[in-house]
Amino acid sequence: MSKNSSNIMALVPKTSNKRETVCIFGTGDFGRALGHKLLQSGYPVVFGSRNPWPSSLIPKDAEVLSHAEAAQKAAIIIIAIQRQHYDFLASLEETLHGKVLVDISNNLKINQYPESNAKYLAQLVPSARVVKAFNTVSAWALQSGTLDASRQVFVCGDDTEAKQMVMDIVRALGLTPLDQGSLLAAREIENYPLQLFPMWKLPIFLSLGLTAFFFFYCLVRDVIYPCVYENKDYSFFLAISIPNRICPIMALVLLALVYLPGVLAAIIQLYRGTKYSRFPDWLDKWMLCRKQLGLVALAFASLHVIYTLVMPIRYYVRWRTEDRTISQALNNKTSPFDNTNGWLSDSYLALGILGFFLFVLLGITSLPSVSNNVNWREFRFVQSKLGYLTLILCTAHTLVYGGKRFLSPSSYRWYLPSAYMLSLIIPCIVLVVKFVLILPCLDKQLTRIRQGWERNPQYSEQSNYIINKSAV
Amino acid sequence: MSKNSSNIMALVPKTSNKRETVCIFGTGDFGRALGHKLLQSGYPVVFGSRNPWPSSLIPKDAEVLSHAEAAQKAAIIIIAIQRQHYDFLASLEETLHGKVLVDISNNLKINQYPESNAKYLAQLVPSARVVKAFNTVSAWALQSGTLDASRQVFVCGDDTEAKQMVMDIVRALGLTPLDQGSLLAAREIENYPLQLFPMWKLPIFLSLGLTAFFFFYCLVRDVIYPCVYENKDYSFFLAISIPNRICPIMALVLLALVYLPGVLAAIIQLYRGTKYSRFPDWLDKWMLCRKQLGLVALAFASLHVIYTLVMPIRYYVRWRTEDRTISQALNNKTSPFDNTNGWLSDSYLALGILGFFLFVLLGITSLPSVSNNVNWREFRFVQSKLGYLTLILCTAHTLVYGGKRFLSPSSYRWYLPSAYMLSLIIPCIVLVVKFVLILPCLDKQLTRIRQGWERNPQYSEQSNYIINKSAV
Amino acid sequence: MSKNSSNIMALVPKTSNKRETVCIFGTGDFGRALGHKLLQSGYPVVFGSRNPWPSSLIPKDAEVLSHAEAAQKAAIIIIAIQRQHYDFLASLEETLHGKVLVDISNNLKINQYPESNAKYLAQLVPSARVVKAFNTVSAWALQSGTLDASRQVFVCGDDTEAKQMVMDIVRALGLTPLDQGSLLAAREIENYPLQLFPMWKLPIFLSLGLTAFFFFYCLVRDVIYPCVYENKDYSFFLAISIPNRICPIMALVLLALVYLPGVLAAIIQLYRGTKYSRFPDWLDKWMLCRKQLGLVALAFASLHVIYTLVMPIRYYVRWRTEDRTISQALNNKTSPFDNTNGWLSDSYLALGILGFFLFVLLGITSLPSVSNNVNWREFRFVQSKLGYLTLILCTAHTLVYGGKRFLSPSSYRWYLPSAYMLSLIIPCIVLVVKFVLILPCLDKQLTRIRQGWERNPQYSEQSNYIINKSAV
Repeated sequence: MSKNSSNIMALVPKTSNKRETVCIFGTGDFGRALGHKLLQSGYPVVFGSRNPWPSSLIPKDAEVLSHAEAAQKAAIIIIAIQRQHYDFLASLEETLHGKVLVDISNNLKINQYPESNAKYLAQLVPSARVVKAFNTVSAWALQSGTLDASRQVFVCGDDTEAKQMVMDIVRALGLTPLDQGSLLAAREIENYPLQLFPMWKLPIFLSLGLTAFFFFYCLVRDVIYPCVYENKDYSFFLAISIPNRICPIMALVLLALVYLPGVLAAIIQLYRGTKYSRFPDWLDKWMLCRKQLGLVALAFASLHVIYTLVMPIRYYVRWRTEDRTISQALNNKTSPFDNTNGWLSDSYLALGILGFFLFVLLGITSLPSVSNNVNWREFRFVQSKLGYLTLILCTAHTLVYGGKRFLSPSSYRWYLPSAYMLSLIIPCIVLVVKFVLILPCLDKQLTRIRQGWERNPQYSEQSNYIINKSAV
Repeated sequence: MSKNSSNIMALVPKTSNKRETVCIFGTGDFGRALGHKLLQSGYPVVFGSRNPWPSSLIPKDAEVLSHAEAAQKAAIIIIAIQRQHYDFLASLEETLHGKVLVDISNNLKINQYPESNAKYLAQLVPSARVVKAFNTVSAWALQSGTLDASRQVFVCGDDTEAKQMVMDIVRALGLTPLDQGSLLAAREIENYPLQLFPMWKLPIFLSLGLTAFFFFYCLVRDVIYPCVYENKDYSFFLAISIPNRICPIMALVLLALVYLPGVLAAIIQLYRGTKYSRFPDWLDKWMLCRKQLGLVALAFASLHVIYTLVMPIRYYVRWRTEDRTISQALNNKTSPFDNTNGWLSDSYLALGILGFFLFVLLGITSLPSVSNNVNWREFRFVQSKLGYLTLILCTAHTLVYGGKRFLSPSSYRWYLPSAYMLSLIIPCIVLVVKFVLILPCLDKQLTRIRQGWERNPQYSEQSNYIINKSAV
Repeated sequence: MSKNSSNIMALVPKTSNKRETVCIFGTGDFGRALGHKLLQSGYPVVFGSRNPWPSSLIPKDAEVLSHAEAAQKAAIIIIAIQRQHYDFLASLEETLHGKVLVDISNNLKINQYPESNAKYLAQLVPSARVVKAFNTVSAWALQSGTLDASRQVFVCGDDTEAKQMVMDIVRALGLTPLDQGSLLAAREIENYPLQLFPMWKLPIFLSLGLTAFFFFYCLVRDVIYPCVYENKDYSFFLAISIPNRICPIMALVLLALVYLPGVLAAIIQLYRGTKYSRFPDWLDKWMLCRKQLGLVALAFASLHVIYTLVMPIRYYVRWRTEDRTISQALNNKTSPFDNTNGWLSDSYLALGILGFFLFVLLGITSLPSVSNNVNWREFRFVQSKLGYLTLILCTAHTLVYGGKRFLSPSSYRWYLPSAYMLSLIIPCIVLVVKFVLILPCLDKQLTRIRQGWERNPQYSEQSNYIINKSAV
């Protein structure tokens, strides 16, 4: 029996391990929201304030003390005050010695100050251990519990243990900490919540520019030309007909631009005979926003699909059909069925449908939760094999659409070719070059280079260790 | 050499750190499935059972003992028995002293008992440390490994360390523990798996009610009226024509209802001159289900799109077109092309397409994995800027659709206006009020209030610390 | 004051807790990329190499030593070399005694060697503690930071503590470790990155086979028959008409095949009178790929929708409409509106639209991030209640489409019934059997069995502990 009871004692863990008190400087919105959430998660909370008396706004279970008193009660102090009021912390230097100071501040503008707020704090109180965290979380989300946007909390700091302590708190609040390294990363972390889709800027500006170009191109050809020469008012083309010309063009050009950098990278690697040399900066940037380019292309393709499907409902199209039917009936002649036209029309539609279907598949696999569940081989299979198949189908769709129109002189108005002809240039180049690159002789060479072989080993001495291995 | 070898010794971690034995009371489905999974993850498992002999159903590597014996072998005991059989645990009080008891039970009904099962267990064995966990996981999912539904395991308990021990096990099983605080949360955790889309109830009942209203409204106007006055049988309108009237109305009304609470909240804040007073309960609830309202609206909008695109395939529409064409041909008259109609038809369709496109974008960004990858600024940009743009486009789509019909007396049957007119009321109100609110004078005031300024500071003394900052 | 300062001391955590040095054997792509990332995350890194001198390719902050020297500096050694070069490690046995060796290797083929690489390593250096990890991560992804594919790192090993140390590193790198148990799991982990959608193989081969069958069936009926008997060239049907016949058939058949195994499982359970007996292997496999079957069915359904909506744009359809209209006008006869046809056409379309709408809903809830946010009751509600409703709607859609054609002898060409009739067989069987199973008498029996009741208790003695509880 005695043996048993000793056995029990050994298996009963010590219960002294309570959660440590957390101190919060500042009783603003975010400080209170965080305090409230910390209390819920079992942390004792003490507020440090200039006016250390309880307020109806401050959670009831929390103590409110002067800054110095509050700081002495905890090993972790969350600084929930704005950067411009940090100065007084220097005077608390002695009390804050060795403490973990959590900088949660945000700025109003990107790169507002020469150094990051966290760095500034570390300079003010050099003996404290500063950790940057929580700045990406909103007070409102903390309170309401509806963390619709990010649950991710970026954490950085020079002291590993301090960082670990803060990350434990983050986890206890039901959020996901992401270690971003040393305090140098604070700058980027502070800029993060001020960013508005940084990866999307290039694709969106590019597509806005191209859209504007093709818009005016089509305007001239399809509205102004008939207005001048045939005195017809086709201004209503602006609503659907012209958008439905621009959308497929944009989709095809942008899709080709997704695969162009991979092809360029392969050419550079073949030319240099090594993969250990850096690509030019513009190529690196281009490769990093391929996913966004592809999604913008998919958006244009989707619009094209709806614009096309809506056609038979349009008054103009219905009127034209009726008008032609009536005039044929009045002239008592019926046009016989043309088998070639049947084939062209159907295969052009079928190619477009299959291309769009694969395009949507690509889009779905680029959803974070889906791409997180596939391995690299699968990801590469989808993004490159299926991707090229999509490009081939969409290019073929456009070529068949062109059909015989290509050679008819009536499609050259003011010497301007149809817009769709322009859109075929880049896709065709990409497909031809890709076809050349997968010829056995070049492909073998490229594979060897990508496996680390170098034609000219000393070349790599000048390069740095960044690996330029593209997911071509 | 000796220095080296000592160096090695210091760097070699001690290997005594084996995983601790876990005891499971109960050999039912869930107990066995959990035992099986624990063994896979390297935990020694001992079962406590009334009939302590090995069975073919129990994993071979696990021991089966009596309850008391099994309990002595482990610090953590998982109680895989039903609440109504808990009583005998009181007799084991001495053996269970200080142990971590994991309550994994579920009830059959929401709030079935006055206290939560975990609380009941804690009252039965006051000297044990009770943790609630695992109740959201299914035995079948544990076994088959296909955790299609949630990998999240809610954990709560009064003892932080006990909770930590359970959360470590949860993680070791490949699941994600979510700390929900003290044992008080057990009630909610036990109700969770019994809930059926609680956030969706309000939006779905609301839309069912509105759908029923508009259905009968359209039935009267479009089927019963022509039946009575023109003696025509339009009953087949029930399949497509009337649904395609209800869907866009519902989509527009619900979308407007997504943005109405934000506008109301702004008015309340402006009127009270502070953000530190609670909103009425109904407004809080409304604001929390805006996402669901929006998604239901998107569902109606999608149905509207398919119903519309399917139109030219319908026998009725094809017959009507043919009939009109033939009668025109027989009467030898062709209607000339009307440019205004061309514009109206095309711009109404274009507005609808763009509105739907933005609506789908909004829907995609509300997918958990996507919204988890955007920061707050981006989330608010998408949900409020793009959201209002969607509302404007959809309202304009409906207005242009109405076009001249608005004034024609034939659209007032039995003094009832067309259903689409009713649907415009709320969106127009929201847009007008929003337009007033973004006038500089009001906007400045509102921004000040949302940054914490109070017109009447003592007001806040009566309020509590809940922050009512809406993501307007 | 002295009390205060001691207080401070107690609250200041010890700062000696630096991150431990990690050693990497091998300076290839992956070794360097991992070293770079480890340095970023605050780990001191030392490389072990045959040529222990600094190279421009190796991160500047890392030391490069001989294998033996490097190994002595760290408790964890990452083996970033290929399996065929492992032999020399045996000679370092003494130095590697007790160290954690992390095997990160991958093979070129599934099951390339008799034992897993990690097992082979453990046999070579029996005194070391081998952990398998990191093999699913790509070097390129580690460097570029764009972890588009999986962030999941599978970890396995026989030593719990060693595994824990490796999992801490994985977490510090911002990746998600998943404990897979003992080193036996290494084989599966090594095969994982070589797999190409293993769960999708069965559904895709099945649908390819069925598609081929239905393709030739339709080819014979719709192209060859009219070619032989009516001498008409309908070859252009290959592009759209025949695919649009195959797609709905495949969607319906595959959807029925999703629900067939659940029905079979219920019959087996009823017949055996217990749930504690294993299902046949083929049924287990079938049940595990139901989700994939359903998604393939959804893909076919989506294609069917686009193919159908595109119909009025096809040259063939436009020509036929015009031709009929003109001939009616010339013959001076108009066909009156047929109310039954109006009903049939509209209700067939409406059923299809609603079925497809629910199908898409099912697809959305099967997205990992969505299904992760629903509880089991909700998941089962969606997948089984909504799923059966979808099946009913789609079957009804096909039945109404068939309409009167069913009995007309002209739809039997060469004694072959229309393809859609074949597609109705499985769905109707599933629905009828399911209807029988939910009759109160059978349903009650089945529920009892699923709750653990056994008609013949000794039966279970022969079975093992796998629970066959299907989410029917």
